Amino acid sequence: MALSPARVRIYEVAQAAGVSIATASKALNDTGRMAEETRQRVRQVAAELGFRPNAMARALLSKRSFTIGLLTNDTYGRFTLPLMAGVSEALVDEGVSVFLCTIEDDPQLARVHVDALLDKQVDGIIASGKRIDRRLQVDLTNLSIPVVYAFTEGPDDAVRLVSDDAQGAREAVQWLRGLGRRRIVHVTGPGSFASVQERTGAFREVVGPDGQVLFGNWSEAWGHEAVRRLWQASASQPDAIFCGNDQIARGVCDALRERGVSVPAEVSVVGFDNWEIVAAATRPPLTTVDMNLKQLGREAGRLVLALARGEAVTPGLRKLACQLVVRQSCGGGVT
Amino acid sequence: MALSPARVRIYEVAQAAGVSIATASKALNDTGRMAEETRQRVRQVAAELGFRPNAMARALLSKRSFTIGLLTNDTYGRFTLPLMAGVSEALVDEGVSVFLCTIEDDPQLARVHVDALLDKQVDGIIASGKRIDRRLQVDLTNLSIPVVYAFTEGPDDAVRLVSDDAQGAREAVQWLRGLGRRRIVHVTGPGSFASVQERTGAFREVVGPDGQVLFGNWSEAWGHEAVRRLWQASASQPDAIFCGNDQIARGVCDALRERGVSVPAEVSVVGFDNWEIVAAATRPPLTTVDMNLKQLGREAGRLVLALARGEAVTPGLRKLACQLVVRQSCGGGVT
Repeated sequence: MALSPARVRIYEVAQAAGVSIATASKALNDTGRMAEETRQRVRQVAAELGFRPNAMARALLSKRSFTIGLLTNDTYGRFTLPLMAGVSEALVDEGVSVFLCTIEDDPQLARVHVDALLDKQVDGIIASGKRIDRRLQVDLTNLSIPVVYAFTEGPDDAVRLVSDDAQGAREAVQWLRGLGRRRIVHVTGPGSFASVQERTGAFREVVGPDGQVLFGNWSEAWGHEAVRRLWQASASQPDAIFCGNDQIARGVCDALRERGVSVPAEVSVVGFDNWEIVAAATRPPLTTVDMNLKQLGREAGRLVLALARGEAVTPGLRKLACQLVVRQSCGGGVT
Repeated sequence: MALSPARVRIYEVAQAAGVSIATASKALNDTGRMAEETRQRVRQVAAELGFRPNAMARALLSKRSFTIGLLTNDTYGRFTLPLMAGVSEALVDEGVSVFLCTIEDDPQLARVHVDALLDKQVDGIIASGKRIDRRLQVDLTNLSIPVVYAFTEGPDDAVRLVSDDAQGAREAVQWLRGLGRRRIVHVTGPGSFASVQERTGAFREVVGPDGQVLFGNWSEAWGHEAVRRLWQASASQPDAIFCGNDQIARGVCDALRERGVSVPAEVSVVGFDNWEIVAAATRPPLTTVDMNLKQLGREAGRLVLALARGEAVTPGLRKLACQLVVRQSCGGGVT
């Protein structure tokens, strides 16, 4: 997708002509209804700016609505908003807008919203959610427009994107080992979550099958409780704690400090999520795994647009790499 | 708006007939293009269900798209997502979907997205943001559809909704006084924010014009720093701290605990925002002011729909009441 930097986009034509993108598209394709004066103005502006749609774009331009629908049941926005930012970033240069529609878990109401998106003739739908192992409560197969599943479960033969939880966990634990830590414990959320299973599996791949894992919930309070249990046990205490999310890690750091255990001097702590509001405010600020949701959104946007253009996209699950963000909770920040 | 509980909604007709709401609307109004068989099926289903649009609804149904656009520059979603939940709640029974479109602060790109919403013929737009004293970087006056401004600045003659910051602050400080606190200090964000000025004004109304206010930023770190300054000063320490947001309040609570000052026994702490992730995880959990953003969203949805129906709505600023949520950081929970 290397583009000449000087390439003129249709939204620039639309803005220069003072019309919407869809109107500009129709004017240039000689479709739709509008005043002849408008059509001429758009064409003149396009010519002046040197707008040259490529062959495929020209063929498909007239069918498109320049809108992508983003469906999610993540009403808190923790996962969906970074993803949406990525989708927007990927598509805005193409003059495509993203409309987010939140659906609750009521299938009947979910259907109302999907119908509304279809009615608006969006060019495609990105389905997202708050768990990678749950489907939205609405059937998106057999729609007349393409659907990409990002950070939610989807049919096997669909285009699906998730963060690579195992790779992210592996990097975190290898980082701890690289710092010389040998008694690493994993404190995480409920064992029923696929992401918990993935991360736990990767943890034990690195430290060995007997690696200690404490399952609980996703809260700070659980981080406190886990430290209490670990430090009450008679066995030797860990020198590193890899946490399933940043909230747990924050609880762990607070609990250790209150016991007089120094982080990172005596114990290294790693979080997961890189949720700025939690990770940056923790004392010390958390080294944590970022799921790169913005990048996931960018890729989802790119793929749904390719599908909308009729390009071939291989179906199946794509796992995108996570990235370790190093702050102060492990030491080793300067490499 | 008292409705018979048995009233059949258009989305129920649409679902029973297996068509979208807009199609059902067109079928019942004898407008739009569709297979005659579809039109008949919708009418038959409507008759069977006993669907009876009232006179005004019938007159306006055919013009509507059953979609409201929600524009915001709050890409973090802190303020906009609760608001969106309220808008959805108010409108879903009417079969109306809400599409959220986030705009950055680039006016040109903001225009692209507004044009996209207009192109989809949404019935109205709710403009929102992350500050009540800043406008979105796009002109929404002179559109052909109604616009309601909720939690963002708008023109004087527009329909505008904000939380009543002064009332919320007043309730918080009066609550502290009711608990017998007499040396109350206000620790808040930057003095340039209108919400900070409103809350500070209300604070001084209650405690007197000499009430001590410390301005800083919105972070936990500022909460720590403010406590350091207050406890280093030679004057008598406060017995209550009213904070400008929950993050500051969390920092204050942590800093006090670490100084051996008991919350709430020695010092009461109140936050602002009721941001669950912060307020509930603070030790002790925060008593805090909830801006009722969901209720604000409900009201915005109700008003934009009324405008879309051609009903008269008085323009001007509406301030909606905040609510004190009592947890454990002040004592006095049991009344």
